[in-house]
Amino acid sequence: MTSLAESVLEGNRLALARLLTQIENHTAEGRSALEYLFPFTGNAHLIGVTGAPGTGKSSLVNQLALYFSKSQDSHEDQSGKNAIHRIAIVAVDPSSPFTGGALLGDRVRMRDLSGNPNIFIRSMASRGSLGGLSRTTAGIVQVLDAAGYDVIMIETVGAGQAEVDIARLAHTTLVVEAPGMGDDIQTIKAGIMEIADVLVVNKADRPGVEATERALRNMLQLGHPTQRTFLHHGRYETVENADQGNDDKLWIPPIQRTVALDGQGIPELVEMINRHVVYLKATNKWQEREYARLQAELDNLLSEVLISRWRSRISDSQYSQILNKVMARKMSPWQAVEVLLDGGEY
Amino acid sequence: MTSLAESVLEGNRLALARLLTQIENHTAEGRSALEYLFPFTGNAHLIGVTGAPGTGKSSLVNQLALYFSKSQDSHEDQSGKNAIHRIAIVAVDPSSPFTGGALLGDRVRMRDLSGNPNIFIRSMASRGSLGGLSRTTAGIVQVLDAAGYDVIMIETVGAGQAEVDIARLAHTTLVVEAPGMGDDIQTIKAGIMEIADVLVVNKADRPGVEATERALRNMLQLGHPTQRTFLHHGRYETVENADQGNDDKLWIPPIQRTVALDGQGIPELVEMINRHVVYLKATNKWQEREYARLQAELDNLLSEVLISRWRSRISDSQYSQILNKVMARKMSPWQAVEVLLDGGEY
Repeated sequence: MTSLAESVLEGNRLALARLLTQIENHTAEGRSALEYLFPFTGNAHLIGVTGAPGTGKSSLVNQLALYFSKSQDSHEDQSGKNAIHRIAIVAVDPSSPFTGGALLGDRVRMRDLSGNPNIFIRSMASRGSLGGLSRTTAGIVQVLDAAGYDVIMIETVGAGQAEVDIARLAHTTLVVEAPGMGDDIQTIKAGIMEIADVLVVNKADRPGVEATERALRNMLQLGHPTQRTFLHHGRYETVENADQGNDDKLWIPPIQRTVALDGQGIPELVEMINRHVVYLKATNKWQEREYARLQAELDNLLSEVLISRWRSRISDSQYSQILNKVMARKMSPWQAVEVLLDGGEY
Repeated sequence: MTSLAESVLEGNRLALARLLTQIENHTAEGRSALEYLFPFTGNAHLIGVTGAPGTGKSSLVNQLALYFSKSQDSHEDQSGKNAIHRIAIVAVDPSSPFTGGALLGDRVRMRDLSGNPNIFIRSMASRGSLGGLSRTTAGIVQVLDAAGYDVIMIETVGAGQAEVDIARLAHTTLVVEAPGMGDDIQTIKAGIMEIADVLVVNKADRPGVEATERALRNMLQLGHPTQRTFLHHGRYETVENADQGNDDKLWIPPIQRTVALDGQGIPELVEMINRHVVYLKATNKWQEREYARLQAELDNLLSEVLISRWRSRISDSQYSQILNKVMARKMSPWQAVEVLLDGGEY
């Protein structure tokens, strides 16, 4: 019998969908399939797309997927022909089932993209759990990577820590803004600016586009003339920019206007994304980001296993007894940690 | 010599500010002061205020602080008089120093609130670290609680996981919306709706206020007729609502319109916040939220200590060797965890 993982490698879309559900549900079958597929990963370009609700991210991602699917990979495949892109979209949507938001978005998406054999779409709803999203997303992305999707777009709603964590998965992060989303420059959050590789002003046919672009440009100029913050081995580091003129080893996030609804600016945006890949590979940053990503995953797994091992060694009643002392302020959380760790097996 | 912690207990604002800086910088002095102060915590009402940028959260928080500072605690203090509220504002602002956003907001805030001896304001910038915010915030809140601030408002920008985590610190969470912030109902994210105890439509003098309020009301009616999701022992649980009529043990988040700039709706909002406290105490949920909060803090500390202990037992070169094998896809992250944990001391 062919395993789910083998069927995924053979290009079976139904098997792929089923395996992704296993990953989302953290089943043992999902985990062993991931183990099997891991050696086949590492080929995809991971593109994070983030921004506030209402910026039109989903339409933008759809347009990008369509454009990628029509363009050809600049690299030749083994048979000497230019390979066709296969695109996966992972929409991380923290909406609850009852909002209907995710479903509506998916229906619109399906109408535009369904039937395209080179595009695969997966929506992840957090279903009330609100946590562990970045871990699950990492697994989903690995499966899609192994399944041969060479462009994987990870779309996140909002601009919080989860988005930053998920963006760390990506080689290239697009931050999407739109005119008139807020009252002042605080709308554009620096935390998000720091993860942006390309800034997109979507809905650029709307009034206020100049102001939005100017605000972004000011922030870039404020942030970039003397120093540059980047992700290095899983940490944000800041270096001095000796020269930001004609240095192809320096990446100043470009700003691109788009109107996703009619496709304006999409070819230019894809060109920028491709230039970013060239930059990453020329500066060894592609490898660095891969390394940081796998290190983050390893550290997450390590902490999970350490905690679950430790928890299996103490009883619930021991644990609640200590916690009750903390509740009564008879013990501080730090004292509790010492008692729990050193009073037990450790 | 009086320690920093003792000075804080005596009401020294300068000592308080200095200690908060120690907490932010995770110093040993800060930690031992927290240990000392922990028994004095547990008296404050923690109010989380969250919402997208541009909703006017900061002005709203200022108005609430002013209103609270003028009103009296409904409970009598030891001397038999009604105590005066002491209010602390913790503004969690992920802006970088170079944006100026945080500074500008602070300056406006200072003009309105400075000189009021019963209001203390602390802005936390993430300064590029982007992580560990909820842990630091927990420490900051404990110090303010011990220092005698009985109303502590924790203001967060955005609507991501960090906001959800920080909101979990609070007894009462306000979610702030404003008219015209987005195009459709997806603007209001369900993940945030689930943590809302009170919904505020600020800038209610603007066009579109009815539509925003209607959208919120629809989401509440969609979400609440048959079930209710709430935080229980650190997890979100959903229960059936047998009866949501005249049940004072059931809390349907009310919606309040405000115009923070001129104070409209502020007294009504404070009234709702006070009703929520009565509800929490009548249903034992006050205790439950305290318990969940301390449990989350304990679990965070435990995992931090477990990991740092484990890391101190293996060398950097051992660790990179394994990580390099994962990079080369010769070992999966799960295999790496097994080797790292069971090949070593564990």
